[in-house]
Amino acid sequence: MNPLRPSIANMAGYVPGFQPPDIASWIKLNTNENPYPPSPKVKEAILAELGDDAALLRTYPSASSEKLREAAAALYGFDPSWIIMANGSDEVLNNLIRACAGEGEEIAYVHPSYSYYATLAEIQGAKVRTFGLTDDFRIADFPERYSGRLFFLTTPNSPLGFAFPLSYVEELATRCDGLLVVDEAYADFNDCNALDLVRRYPNVVITRTLSKSYALAGMRLGLAIARPEIVAALDKIRDHYNLDRLAQAACVAALQDQDYFKKRRDQVVATRKFFVTELQSLGYTVLESAGNFVFASPPDRNGRRVYDGLYARKILVRHFSDPLLAHGLRISIGTREEMEQTLGALREIG
Amino acid sequence: MNPLRPSIANMAGYVPGFQPPDIASWIKLNTNENPYPPSPKVKEAILAELGDDAALLRTYPSASSEKLREAAAALYGFDPSWIIMANGSDEVLNNLIRACAGEGEEIAYVHPSYSYYATLAEIQGAKVRTFGLTDDFRIADFPERYSGRLFFLTTPNSPLGFAFPLSYVEELATRCDGLLVVDEAYADFNDCNALDLVRRYPNVVITRTLSKSYALAGMRLGLAIARPEIVAALDKIRDHYNLDRLAQAACVAALQDQDYFKKRRDQVVATRKFFVTELQSLGYTVLESAGNFVFASPPDRNGRRVYDGLYARKILVRHFSDPLLAHGLRISIGTREEMEQTLGALREIG
Repeated sequence: MNPLRPSIANMAGYVPGFQPPDIASWIKLNTNENPYPPSPKVKEAILAELGDDAALLRTYPSASSEKLREAAAALYGFDPSWIIMANGSDEVLNNLIRACAGEGEEIAYVHPSYSYYATLAEIQGAKVRTFGLTDDFRIADFPERYSGRLFFLTTPNSPLGFAFPLSYVEELATRCDGLLVVDEAYADFNDCNALDLVRRYPNVVITRTLSKSYALAGMRLGLAIARPEIVAALDKIRDHYNLDRLAQAACVAALQDQDYFKKRRDQVVATRKFFVTELQSLGYTVLESAGNFVFASPPDRNGRRVYDGLYARKILVRHFSDPLLAHGLRISIGTREEMEQTLGALREIG
Repeated sequence: MNPLRPSIANMAGYVPGFQPPDIASWIKLNTNENPYPPSPKVKEAILAELGDDAALLRTYPSASSEKLREAAAALYGFDPSWIIMANGSDEVLNNLIRACAGEGEEIAYVHPSYSYYATLAEIQGAKVRTFGLTDDFRIADFPERYSGRLFFLTTPNSPLGFAFPLSYVEELATRCDGLLVVDEAYADFNDCNALDLVRRYPNVVITRTLSKSYALAGMRLGLAIARPEIVAALDKIRDHYNLDRLAQAACVAALQDQDYFKKRRDQVVATRKFFVTELQSLGYTVLESAGNFVFASPPDRNGRRVYDGLYARKILVRHFSDPLLAHGLRISIGTREEMEQTLGALREIG
């Protein structure tokens, strides 16, 4: 017999953003990485964990990621029993589906946003429903009561960059019978977040990542904040040693160095403001962004043409062939210098 | 509505081996960790990846773990398309179940062995069947043809330490309609392995870990070796960035330093031989072991009594309350000095 489940054999699989092998020779603005290194405390913490001969690596890490949960709990104002740590927020998105949606049950998300939710649901055999956006960035045709098991709301939205108003997120929480998962991968670049809604609504879960605002994409660190009974269920599903020793050390150090975090976040936000103004002066249409990237379209609405022009100049941005998105580009916010070079290239490309 | 699937809400969850917080003051022989540090090349590789300011950590790791798969492929004599890397072998065990067993379908394993297979199946909603052992360590009542989706065979077996003869593993492969997953977590301490069976039987998969023989339990590194079509399916299921940058660097360095690996492996095997002989001279019954641990029972067959005596002396070993195992202890092989201290404690305990 074929050893594979037919649904797995037939599915397409998710394709992550392109990573050029000669990475150092590119201006890489395609996967919303932070242009600055992580806090210097991160390297110090890793070196301390390594010690003279890396002998600690022979022993298992903390299974409960206790110190990380304590650091996150202190930062966000929750008890550690409300926090679960993950090997990137992708892991906890995966486990939320496994915890809540059985084969044939429904989950939903907004299109466009993070299509990986659909891949995760497909692996589980869950049904997927997508909701579109209205012209003023509300969810089109969202039912008075949504009875699916999970609704994933990416806010700030990627690739478009807008954030839903908190009052609207709250309204959605009251309209969902199942969990409302507020994917706040980019919330640190916004001026508000839904943390208070987790306290007030039993069906609200927030996911976060250290990949973007803490410059640790390379260390695979994410977390979720939810009621303890949901955290307890996720805890049963995750790999019991899901985070290695060095990732654990890096995470605590990064979360605790808030001065560095804020300095770098403010730099990214300032560069975003500069870049948006300059793009607009080039005639680009730019959506207001609450993330560390912008979605912008050239006057001729030919995103692919501009993508190719930038690519030829070794500047990598993101173009989506989806008809809803093909007119524009998602451009990550790099250093001020990188954005000036990008603007120069855009002027050449015309 | 309750957001959780009833099966998840009601399941017990897996409890990993106890990790004392004041680890340095214990002789820790309870989770089969390697007593020696990893290869010095591991630390060198991590430092090289970190560089001056850990700037690379801001960027995503390789999604395909290409260099790791090449290193493993060269070592084991396969094409890289036959290798998948995992965040500990637990991740790939999990994904094998997801790839092959839908809700209500059956997987099986041998009891006693690694009960985490049952937890993973329970998360998936798959049915679990266990097979016992005969007195001469064959599988009791194994059907002429086993039609479940997966059969997990831990060899060398933990906690008992014996290994199935290869000819018997081969016979099992021919009797399984689904996949035979040969969990070789401890195979590096044995004098044979099932690699050749993966080449010859399309339904044989091998899983390995770097936790034990490569002294990297703290870095969460495992892998599976299987036909490319099975690897391709597992690839769709795993988190696309499942291994962080430092884990990837550590893995390549460890696999490529075979001189160090063999030296340390031979030390563990020599210490095992010494320890077994000494235990027998104390009147213990010791099963022949092909792993980095032994299963031994005192003359009065009261494993708990001896566990408590060792615990009081800050020596941590593993006792299982299961009636099949309660008469003995699983004792990891530490350094020669640690085993001498353990023998001294056992003489005191009597």
